[in-house]
Amino acid sequence: MTLDDLNQRLRDFAAARSWEPFHTPKNLVMALSGEVGELTSLFQWLTPEESEKWRSDPELAHNVVDEIADVTLYLLQLANSLGVDLIEAANAKIDRNEHRFPAPG
Amino acid sequence: MTLDDLNQRLRDFAAARSWEPFHTPKNLVMALSGEVGELTSLFQWLTPEESEKWRSDPELAHNVVDEIADVTLYLLQLANSLGVDLIEAANAKIDRNEHRFPAPG
Amino acid sequence: MTLDDLNQRLRDFAAARSWEPFHTPKNLVMALSGEVGELTSLFQWLTPEESEKWRSDPELAHNVVDEIADVTLYLLQLANSLGVDLIEAANAKIDRNEHRFPAPG
Amino acid sequence: MTLDDLNQRLRDFAAARSWEPFHTPKNLVMALSGEVGELTSLFQWLTPEESEKWRSDPELAHNVVDEIADVTLYLLQLANSLGVDLIEAANAKIDRNEHRFPAPG
Repeated sequence: MTLDDLNQRLRDFAAARSWEPFHTPKNLVMALSGEVGELTSLFQWLTPEESEKWRSDPELAHNVVDEIADVTLYLLQLANSLGVDLIEAANAKIDRNEHRFPAPG
Repeated sequence: MTLDDLNQRLRDFAAARSWEPFHTPKNLVMALSGEVGELTSLFQWLTPEESEKWRSDPELAHNVVDEIADVTLYLLQLANSLGVDLIEAANAKIDRNEHRFPAPG
Repeated sequence: MTLDDLNQRLRDFAAARSWEPFHTPKNLVMALSGEVGELTSLFQWLTPEESEKWRSDPELAHNVVDEIADVTLYLLQLANSLGVDLIEAANAKIDRNEHRFPAPG
Repeated sequence: MTLDDLNQRLRDFAAARSWEPFHTPKNLVMALSGEVGELTSLFQWLTPEESEKWRSDPELAHNVVDEIADVTLYLLQLANSLGVDLIEAANAKIDRNEHRFPAPG
């Protein structure tokens, strides 16, 4: 499964349910924000060290994977709605970050 | 450029700057949350219809692509830190969503 | 009930459960962020006009009041943890905003 | 300055700039979400212990107070827009939390 396949699957999923009218950038950024909030809440009381051992708690582990999947799905749908290629945008941003934060040495 | 290439580039970028110790899941989920907040603020006063015409304002267009790139980069770094395959997790979630929200007809 | 009374009640509530060690600014800002995410998700598919009629749906109305209460409680606990007086900080910010955004006429 | 005074000042501020049409619950929850994102980003790389010493860095200290003020202002404007009394809602939620999380002993 590639990112393109996943995007196509998401488009088909929304079309089969007639959900496209809801999928404006404004609405999707709110949906993304809501899911990131749920992901954040899973880590709020953990120390940074405990957050690295998230797999040792099966319920937490299930919820983390579930929420990170939701975040990914809404980010992809937002990018579809905006017509932005995420890989290309992210790659161009690393180029800019390499100028902003030059590596030492 | 594939998602795997992008992930490798992000790992090299963090390693060259010795930033790995900061990249715990707890910290990265906060960074993701911060960038989603900045993305959200770009759309806060727009109507849903205006949000679809975001490219007609060149400054907004630049900022949207910039912020969505930041969100993508932190989501990828969070997934790297967690050892989660985003495509696989997202695909499995669509499977579950197809059961939760059956398509009509 | 004043804001001071509410703050004292929150301090007593945390103390009675020995939750103070968890209430670092870092953790509380994550908790605030999580609750704001839940509040956001309640409005994500509504039009701006529908969002103004939130009381007409009893389940939505209950959830909105519940989530806005959670946001308020974590904001107060964060302010307690930081030792910041919210009213004073907010008032000083309006002063600055009056300079940044002069009223027309 | 009381919470009621602050609310009145916010209403006057918005009215003098004719900003009320933008202040739907949907828009204000996005604005709140954006400001919480900015507040979160200030703490993202700090350890929980460092986050308690935020006043020792003057630039961080200024930014924290500034962002927490913004969060407060948008939460108050959201509550105004919803017609919800924050103190009353928060107090009722502590009542419910006392049942959900009984104090030991």
